[in-house]
Amino acid sequence: RPLSAVPAASSEPPAPLAADRLATPCERADVPVARPPAFPHTVFVGHNNCDTDSVMAAIGAAALYNGHPARCNQAVNAETRYLLDRFGEPVPPPANDPRFVGKNWGLVDTAELAQVPAGVVLGRLVAVVDHHGLGADSVSTAHPVHIDMRPWGSCATIVAYKFWEASEPLPRKVAPLLMAAILSDTLNLRSPTTTPADRYAAKHLAKVSGMNATEVQDLVRGMFRAKSDVSGLTPAQVISLDYKEYAMGAHRVGWGTAETVSPRQYVDQAPALNDALRAHRRRRGLDAIFFSAVDVLRMRSLLLVPSPAEQ
Amino acid sequence: RPLSAVPAASSEPPAPLAADRLATPCERADVPVARPPAFPHTVFVGHNNCDTDSVMAAIGAAALYNGHPARCNQAVNAETRYLLDRFGEPVPPPANDPRFVGKNWGLVDTAELAQVPAGVVLGRLVAVVDHHGLGADSVSTAHPVHIDMRPWGSCATIVAYKFWEASEPLPRKVAPLLMAAILSDTLNLRSPTTTPADRYAAKHLAKVSGMNATEVQDLVRGMFRAKSDVSGLTPAQVISLDYKEYAMGAHRVGWGTAETVSPRQYVDQAPALNDALRAHRRRRGLDAIFFSAVDVLRMRSLLLVPSPAEQ
Repeated sequence: RPLSAVPAASSEPPAPLAADRLATPCERADVPVARPPAFPHTVFVGHNNCDTDSVMAAIGAAALYNGHPARCNQAVNAETRYLLDRFGEPVPPPANDPRFVGKNWGLVDTAELAQVPAGVVLGRLVAVVDHHGLGADSVSTAHPVHIDMRPWGSCATIVAYKFWEASEPLPRKVAPLLMAAILSDTLNLRSPTTTPADRYAAKHLAKVSGMNATEVQDLVRGMFRAKSDVSGLTPAQVISLDYKEYAMGAHRVGWGTAETVSPRQYVDQAPALNDALRAHRRRRGLDAIFFSAVDVLRMRSLLLVPSPAEQ
Repeated sequence: RPLSAVPAASSEPPAPLAADRLATPCERADVPVARPPAFPHTVFVGHNNCDTDSVMAAIGAAALYNGHPARCNQAVNAETRYLLDRFGEPVPPPANDPRFVGKNWGLVDTAELAQVPAGVVLGRLVAVVDHHGLGADSVSTAHPVHIDMRPWGSCATIVAYKFWEASEPLPRKVAPLLMAAILSDTLNLRSPTTTPADRYAAKHLAKVSGMNATEVQDLVRGMFRAKSDVSGLTPAQVISLDYKEYAMGAHRVGWGTAETVSPRQYVDQAPALNDALRAHRRRRGLDAIFFSAVDVLRMRSLLLVPSPAEQ
């Protein structure tokens, strides 16, 4: 590669990552297939406050590596439960299940130290599969481990690719779970984080699952409806469903969010939610707190502003 | 996977990583091939004080991703130069070459901040391929990047696997360079860091290179002889060829090493080397300094002890 062929330097930001090139299977029959390492007796688990992607990626990685899936120590959310019920998959045990003591660990969907569920022993970490990148507060280990991070729309997409790269048959039972996780994390392939890899994986997983486009969209409606159902929850529980705290300069800010097909319910109970937000802000000593409801059908958001501090 | 099938917990350390299972090519014709992302206009470079693995992994990654190879800003060592000459590959330009300004960057064979050559812009990092694991002083980025770390014997092995996983044809020109890097980093597949993946990759790369076992061993002898030739270097240059500093508890320790087929030369010049080590220890304010010469044919080491402090 002569250097004269290097294109002129430019000052634009890093190129958009990864327009994945696709090929037909076995285009190169002379290429050896190098299977992935096995991680037996290894428990795969996602982040605290587990969501569909973290649970399904754990189930997928456990299937690929002959390990065991776990969930975070909280209950799975209504969307995840709907999907597990729908496809006859049991809810994985929590990371702090006593039967996992002494096992090796694989992290999926996170590499952030603060997001690792209790029960995980980092000294026995053997693998990380994540789509969030390497922050300053990532896990670090004294021994080398397998780490695979790709800036794609969901961790489930990476797990699906790992099956294909290894020429490992992807179990028909696992395919719809990974597909649903991709559609969940990318808001039905419409979020700005969606990559060609996510589209490719979702399409092929639907094929392996034996689902046509109509059946997939029926599933998405079911997922979104399940996720939207906050009836029976207190306002304090609603704002905690998907909640994170951030340092913004000198300020500490809390942000809860909900994805919904019925944003009206949040407008209707705005006074009670605002009360809960103010109480939470006081209890956590925050400078500001917000709650947004994302209308996943119309792709717009409602933002609650509990007091002048947030304006 | 019912939990009753989880084997009893054990307290042994993490299982030895990755006995790689091998398969014949295209065993599963129904598996889609998902090609890797392209990283055009990206420069791939290894660590400071570049060795054969870091230079060849950069050349391999650049070939895989349609980018450009670079070396660290120091001169390549005699072994690397021997190999590049032998296979008609030009020495890659240094990372701080002005023609690389404004490009994106991929790191190979390191993820350690202190090991990143000048010229690399971490804000434009798009990929890391490494076999050293995730230390506390690793690079971190605000944006997600592609990271692939595997605890194998050489970074070149990972690059070779990435070709195969993507069903990308591995160029015949690149194969012997990656093979030589594996044999260099694993001391001809005899170091304790050697994994089944390294053996598999070296064997298949020899095949792609059209080299038989005798030709491979001739190459290894040539590499080791080139690496051993320190004639014409000052003692200060000899101890700096492959030198690192470590914090051991409250002590700061320097360690230089050389791999050689003629350990006798180090015994013969031990007084001059010890003088150079003591001078280096003073200059760097270290508590202790060592120099080891690894006899790569007999697989044993000589250790220089320049003063009572090291005993």
